[in-house]
Amino acid sequence: MASSKPDIAFIGLGAMGFGMATNLVKQGYKVTGFDVWGPTLERFKAEGGLAATTPAEAVKNKDYCVCMVATAQQAQAVLLDGENAAVPALPQGAAVLLCSTVPCSYVQELEKQLSAVGRGDIQLVDAPVSGGAYRAADGTLSIMAGASDAAIEKSRFLLQEMSDPTKLYIAAGGIGAGSNMKMVHQVLAANQILATSEALGFAAHLGLDLKKAADTVISSQGKSWMFEHRSPRALHPEFQPIASATTIILKDTSIITAEARRAGFPTPMTSTAEQVYFTGVGRGYGPDDDSSLIRLYWEGKGKVGPVAGTAQTDEAKLALVVGLLKGIHLCSAGECIAFAARLGLDLDQVFELCINAAGGSAMLEAVGPEMMSLVKTAGGAAAGSAAGDSLDKVVSELQEAVDEAQRLKAPVFLGSQALNLTRLALAHRPKTAAAATTGVVVKVWG
Amino acid sequence: MASSKPDIAFIGLGAMGFGMATNLVKQGYKVTGFDVWGPTLERFKAEGGLAATTPAEAVKNKDYCVCMVATAQQAQAVLLDGENAAVPALPQGAAVLLCSTVPCSYVQELEKQLSAVGRGDIQLVDAPVSGGAYRAADGTLSIMAGASDAAIEKSRFLLQEMSDPTKLYIAAGGIGAGSNMKMVHQVLAANQILATSEALGFAAHLGLDLKKAADTVISSQGKSWMFEHRSPRALHPEFQPIASATTIILKDTSIITAEARRAGFPTPMTSTAEQVYFTGVGRGYGPDDDSSLIRLYWEGKGKVGPVAGTAQTDEAKLALVVGLLKGIHLCSAGECIAFAARLGLDLDQVFELCINAAGGSAMLEAVGPEMMSLVKTAGGAAAGSAAGDSLDKVVSELQEAVDEAQRLKAPVFLGSQALNLTRLALAHRPKTAAAATTGVVVKVWG
Repeated sequence: MASSKPDIAFIGLGAMGFGMATNLVKQGYKVTGFDVWGPTLERFKAEGGLAATTPAEAVKNKDYCVCMVATAQQAQAVLLDGENAAVPALPQGAAVLLCSTVPCSYVQELEKQLSAVGRGDIQLVDAPVSGGAYRAADGTLSIMAGASDAAIEKSRFLLQEMSDPTKLYIAAGGIGAGSNMKMVHQVLAANQILATSEALGFAAHLGLDLKKAADTVISSQGKSWMFEHRSPRALHPEFQPIASATTIILKDTSIITAEARRAGFPTPMTSTAEQVYFTGVGRGYGPDDDSSLIRLYWEGKGKVGPVAGTAQTDEAKLALVVGLLKGIHLCSAGECIAFAARLGLDLDQVFELCINAAGGSAMLEAVGPEMMSLVKTAGGAAAGSAAGDSLDKVVSELQEAVDEAQRLKAPVFLGSQALNLTRLALAHRPKTAAAATTGVVVKVWG
Repeated sequence: MASSKPDIAFIGLGAMGFGMATNLVKQGYKVTGFDVWGPTLERFKAEGGLAATTPAEAVKNKDYCVCMVATAQQAQAVLLDGENAAVPALPQGAAVLLCSTVPCSYVQELEKQLSAVGRGDIQLVDAPVSGGAYRAADGTLSIMAGASDAAIEKSRFLLQEMSDPTKLYIAAGGIGAGSNMKMVHQVLAANQILATSEALGFAAHLGLDLKKAADTVISSQGKSWMFEHRSPRALHPEFQPIASATTIILKDTSIITAEARRAGFPTPMTSTAEQVYFTGVGRGYGPDDDSSLIRLYWEGKGKVGPVAGTAQTDEAKLALVVGLLKGIHLCSAGECIAFAARLGLDLDQVFELCINAAGGSAMLEAVGPEMMSLVKTAGGAAAGSAAGDSLDKVVSELQEAVDEAQRLKAPVFLGSQALNLTRLALAHRPKTAAAATTGVVVKVWG
């Protein structure tokens, strides 16, 4: 392949797409880019890319087209519906890698549309990515790809160019499976991004030094990849630099809840996060970094009348913050794994993806294996291999945090929801069951 | 009794207490009032009452003391802990009617404290009320009273003076049972007050005329006592007149969730409402009428970028608003009844109380009997007497509303939670069960 690298069309040169496309240029590919935003195309040319003025022009005579636009609506426009759309201009048998995060239902519909317009020859690959702009430019993304075997084989080299060698996940199930894997990963992202703001807002109500609180969390069982990456920006006076706008995680969150509703599946954690994201966007925080939602949590401090908590020492207060996060992460792990099981995904693959990507948390690592075992076992008999803390301990720490937040009149949307979910889970345990292990929470989803 | 009405001490002459005390004056009682707010005492004297400068002075030689302060903390101060507290000054065998809304745990603790200080002779009655200031002054409150038989008999005439003849509920279970009845009623109040703001905020995002939306709701199966009473103030430009401050319903809400946590009982609906109340109080809306929380819901309209719903006609949009409320009311009814069952309350009595008080809703009337039958039946076999709409219909209407709210990026905290709860309930139905009737939602609580 090295001596005759195929030409690539690349549609959508945003924060992620620009990095991905320039990485391909650096790997020696001739890449023709298209974007609606002219200055981006100029920048791309400066990096050695070629520029097209329409999607159709970009894909002409290209056997490979990567599409990295922001939404399903945009994908539909550039591929099929818009003026000078790509699909009619693609050569026979060309591969289209749709790397945007879209609903499974959309990419499956797209596959049907291709057949309906007589382009069933196109080798569509459902290949959403994760990892952020830096890893995009570095060619070390996580990629979750679903497609026919033929399409995967045709495109494997290109997926490999864009991904870390250990982070290319070929999801069984064809078109839609990649998007579903990305979606269940985003259950963790949606909850853990907001949990960062919630925990630090709670720390503010507790009167803690927030930098110290963040450091404590990061070296505790309450840590998550998102907390580590978001907390510095949440504590920046202007929530800078903007790494990911609130509107972006809201978009992914809404995909999760909409697909879940379509499947009749409950997503109490992600739905709670979504409502808070709507509130943030309604306040005008949509373009701001998602870590800036800490504003929704700490704004009441000092405005809710005289309040008094019971935790006196910094140590006790920090333990409450960690307990809040552990409880939230427990339930976001449960929602992720239960949804993955409902969608028929390979749970071991999902787990491996999640712990090595932005959805990772100490709690997921600890309870994930037990949860997977529980959802595989229809009857609900625990595998009995609970790692880490007992459920009693996690619930009691979470309850202490929610109790204290109530005394301080501090909102803890996710923590309160997580506590209720653990209670609902316990209410549905068979009376004859052994003492509950931590992962049992996953059974609340059915 | 008419010829020799006993003297009454009345502690706490706020909005409710003032009306209750002046009503007793009008009924021919000699009432000695105490309040920390001097001008109120002057007003009370002008209405024919007597004024005392301390609780001890008020109760001196009084065989009856009604306490109507705002919180458990205040009750503890005026009865026992404060300077010149009432209890030491009460005659032997006097009756104390605690009418404040307090946690069951507090009034039970108070009973123990009376014994501990050697005043086990006092005939304590746990007698919270409902009905608002107008009915307080009219002597037609709903009263939920729990106490020993002797204390009830001693105080029955006084409870009757303050209540509507059909709305005096003597709760079995002694001290704490009255507060528990009030508390489960407030589950409905907490959710349905906020649901009014949520539904009208959603109507605003839909672009509906809000007065027309309110009128439609009131003549629909989405109606509730709270919606009827709150919606005019929610639509008033300044949310006037202030009938009940946001801090008041937040106090009752926090009693519910705190007592539920103490019992290990999940309250996903009320907890969601509480988090939104915290947000409202944090925004500075605490002293404002609780109907003003509509501001939290409509503020994003026009600020969330171009959005487009699918409902085109006013009729379709109004149906979404009604569907949202029906779903919320279904789940608040479930939470109320499941919690009442957990607390061992007389469900028929709770139901009768609720449908005739501020917690009433068309949905509660329709599904309450089936829900009560289901929680009484351990195995979960439905009574098969589903009234009103099928669960499928309620869920599908609710889902349409939540779908549309998502398209409009409108927050619907309670509606989203209610939808997830119905899904969780369905996930736990035995596979062999017959088609789900509407009340089955109650089974999600265990």
